[in-house]
Amino acid sequence: MRFNFKLILNILGILLIFNGIFMLLCLPFSIYYREAWWHLAASGGITALVGGIMTVSTRKNTNKELKKKDGYLIVTLGWLIMSFFGTIPYLLSGSIPDLTNAFFETISGYTTTGASIINNIEGVPKGILFWRSLTQWIGGMGIIVLAVAILPILGIGGMQLFVAEAPGISPDKMKPRIKEVAKRLWFMYLGLTIAETILLTLGGMTFYDAINHSLTTMATGGFSTKNASVAYYESAYIQYVIIVFMFLAGTNFTITYFGLKGKFRKAWDNEEFRNYFFITLILSISISFFVFSSKWESFEKSFRDSLFQVVSVITTTGFVTADYTAWAPFLTIIFFLLMFMGASAGSTAGGIKVVRHTLLFKNSFLEMKRQLHPSAIIPVRLNGIAVSRDITYNVLAFIMIYLLVYGVGVFLLSFTGEEFDTALGAVATCLGNIGPGLGAVGPVNNFHDITGFGKWLLSFLMLLGRLELFTVLMLFNKNFWQKV
Amino acid sequence: MRFNFKLILNILGILLIFNGIFMLLCLPFSIYYREAWWHLAASGGITALVGGIMTVSTRKNTNKELKKKDGYLIVTLGWLIMSFFGTIPYLLSGSIPDLTNAFFETISGYTTTGASIINNIEGVPKGILFWRSLTQWIGGMGIIVLAVAILPILGIGGMQLFVAEAPGISPDKMKPRIKEVAKRLWFMYLGLTIAETILLTLGGMTFYDAINHSLTTMATGGFSTKNASVAYYESAYIQYVIIVFMFLAGTNFTITYFGLKGKFRKAWDNEEFRNYFFITLILSISISFFVFSSKWESFEKSFRDSLFQVVSVITTTGFVTADYTAWAPFLTIIFFLLMFMGASAGSTAGGIKVVRHTLLFKNSFLEMKRQLHPSAIIPVRLNGIAVSRDITYNVLAFIMIYLLVYGVGVFLLSFTGEEFDTALGAVATCLGNIGPGLGAVGPVNNFHDITGFGKWLLSFLMLLGRLELFTVLMLFNKNFWQKV
Ligand SMILES: [K+]
Ligand SMILES: [K+]
Repeated sequence: MRFNFKLILNILGILLIFNGIFMLLCLPFSIYYREAWWHLAASGGITALVGGIMTVSTRKNTNKELKKKDGYLIVTLGWLIMSFFGTIPYLLSGSIPDLTNAFFETISGYTTTGASIINNIEGVPKGILFWRSLTQWIGGMGIIVLAVAILPILGIGGMQLFVAEAPGISPDKMKPRIKEVAKRLWFMYLGLTIAETILLTLGGMTFYDAINHSLTTMATGGFSTKNASVAYYESAYIQYVIIVFMFLAGTNFTITYFGLKGKFRKAWDNEEFRNYFFITLILSISISFFVFSSKWESFEKSFRDSLFQVVSVITTTGFVTADYTAWAPFLTIIFFLLMFMGASAGSTAGGIKVVRHTLLFKNSFLEMKRQLHPSAIIPVRLNGIAVSRDITYNVLAFIMIYLLVYGVGVFLLSFTGEEFDTALGAVATCLGNIGPGLGAVGPVNNFHDITGFGKWLLSFLMLLGRLELFTVLMLFNKNFWQKV
Repeated sequence: MRFNFKLILNILGILLIFNGIFMLLCLPFSIYYREAWWHLAASGGITALVGGIMTVSTRKNTNKELKKKDGYLIVTLGWLIMSFFGTIPYLLSGSIPDLTNAFFETISGYTTTGASIINNIEGVPKGILFWRSLTQWIGGMGIIVLAVAILPILGIGGMQLFVAEAPGISPDKMKPRIKEVAKRLWFMYLGLTIAETILLTLGGMTFYDAINHSLTTMATGGFSTKNASVAYYESAYIQYVIIVFMFLAGTNFTITYFGLKGKFRKAWDNEEFRNYFFITLILSISISFFVFSSKWESFEKSFRDSLFQVVSVITTTGFVTADYTAWAPFLTIIFFLLMFMGASAGSTAGGIKVVRHTLLFKNSFLEMKRQLHPSAIIPVRLNGIAVSRDITYNVLAFIMIYLLVYGVGVFLLSFTGEEFDTALGAVATCLGNIGPGLGAVGPVNNFHDITGFGKWLLSFLMLLGRLELFTVLMLFNKNFWQKV
């Protein structure tokens, strides 16, 4: 057999069981708020049951070996099957009655994109809304393992480069390593979520709102329980707390780990982190001067709005405290360009990522040098270490394919009749897992009125972006399905 | 001495002498149309005189050797110095009284971009207008030599790949090779220009308009003598003639050479040519169905408008017979994407070029295969021949830098307050040497109202795009100025 389908099904079954259990975790909120709770109970039951059947029926498995190809298949199918079963609470409760919209909302959750089709979020039952936030948190958990442990082994888009420790793990050490890394980072992920919940509650948020926003902050997801997103909370304290946690969620988790252990030097020595920090800082300050001079609110408010929006877009979270597309044409353009940045690799952020841009930028300069000295071998250096040509090539190919997919996405979406800025913004924000786009899908609008075809296309692009392109695109390559 | 400045000055001087002579070639039209002719005479005189002084004062030159670095410097300075002296007819005649606008119009000519700041083209004296067309034709002449003979030797952006014959010329054979290639291709360039002039005159155009449009067609320049561009001529015959010659001007000149010699098989075997042909055909037919179904003009008119616009944008000519931004939002988007295509390498077209896209596309697929088989060496094949990894790398770097420059360009232009579509379109059209953009600089508008800063920025981008980026960017690299 080419693929170890039995083991693949077994693993997918386990994922579904966990997914079902997570659905049941929403029940307390349904019960507390005296809502109909059977939708969630049934959804959880069905999902866990299907998962259970899949797992049990494939448990007699002598072949425990997973090949690289199995890895690609598990990751893509895992995200897809979760997204299909994740629609059940929406469909059963009638909060989102049709599959296209429900699937869009769910995959937007699991991919931590946060693009929404719900017009009146505050009208959705609290239990269902908690499920919505939870899909992002689950997605974020998945991403951490994926980015730090799985993708480097699969050799995707130069990801092996971005893991701060132990590069070049051999596939046979894959399983113990995933377990160890996952445990440590999930613990941190959970800890930060709890910390943010406490801090937000202290700022006067209800516990329910605090936990929802914390789940979606740490996942850089951006689903809110309010129609106006974080703009609903006028408290400067709350907004600064969210800014800090968005920034942390966009930081490489192994670097945050060093930071929490007091090894600040090690964190600061990381080139990607420094660039991520300075890009955020410089952009926020520049924009705040403009906002201040044009709106004449207090400088603190101008700075906070600018900082919040820059951090929200660069970390691909997508929370909104101000409509940046209404500030000025030039800011719309800058935020559009920022959608292609992405925060750090090894975080829950989507997009291209700062480290790839760093490599691209440095390599572009060196390319000139290489042309002047064609026979010399001039490698790109990152954190003082020469990056192999293979990895550099891989990173360039990643960025190219990202932009190629972007172009094809815009091309296809254009047929649905969307306007220029809407089409360009929608594809950028979905592929980059950000959330709000431009025009008709801008920060104060949503994706409700996109056509059905458009929604399935954008759902696919969210998945592509989230799984670092190659993982998904690989399955469309005939070599993948060939016997070797 | 690091640079052979004496010889560089000598060559630039010769360029200026020719430039002056070309200005004097406009005099017959001034005289025939009974316009003030002394502006052109004085301009030509001054330019040739300065060129003469430069050449004569540097003629005692024992060092005849030109290094690679000298090559870069000559190309960039050549285009710049021509553009500065090329403004004199506009400034002296008062047709364009200020330097910013005059320089924009002139460099738009020499780079064969065709972006214009003149509001009433038909009000400009015929002699000056002929000079305007001639700048594009001269620019096109320069590009042919550059693309086919100089850039491959300088190793720019994989250009060595795109020369159909004799790859890998050694620098010492540079001079005789340039002369030989230039002679043959210029002869063809001149011949095609004359042929088009005759065919257009036969279609009822005045000789003056025919020669102007032929000069700017063959250069894929797109300057017209009419405010409405080619839409002025409602003759289907005239528009089809221009379509054919635009397509030819966007074809690799060595392939056209084979074609003219009857070696059609050799032309058809070229992958870039086939892709260029099919992209044009498929896009034109698809769009014409849409235009037909929405406007219900005759199908022939719908097809002709679509074909004309597609050929005009893909060849980066920029002539206009219909405002494609008014057809439908999705067509605006498609034409915007098409601005990044570019026709064939080795033609007078600007932009990224079909061959680079072909390589990128193929390489993207192979990158998946490489990840499945990390130890295998899997080269990209073009025209059946394996492309070296160095060249592939070089091409990818070119596309990346193109898009990076695009992003930075949009970023900088956004500060001038242009709207989203205007900024994105203006930078795309100038960097790609096309001419018309979107929004306020769309097909039925011009660049008159762009700010001064914006005009200098766009002028720089035209030069960057025209000289295949590296040639110019190289000069900003500190390594370039270092002693080796
Ligand atoms: K997001
Ligand atoms: K042009």
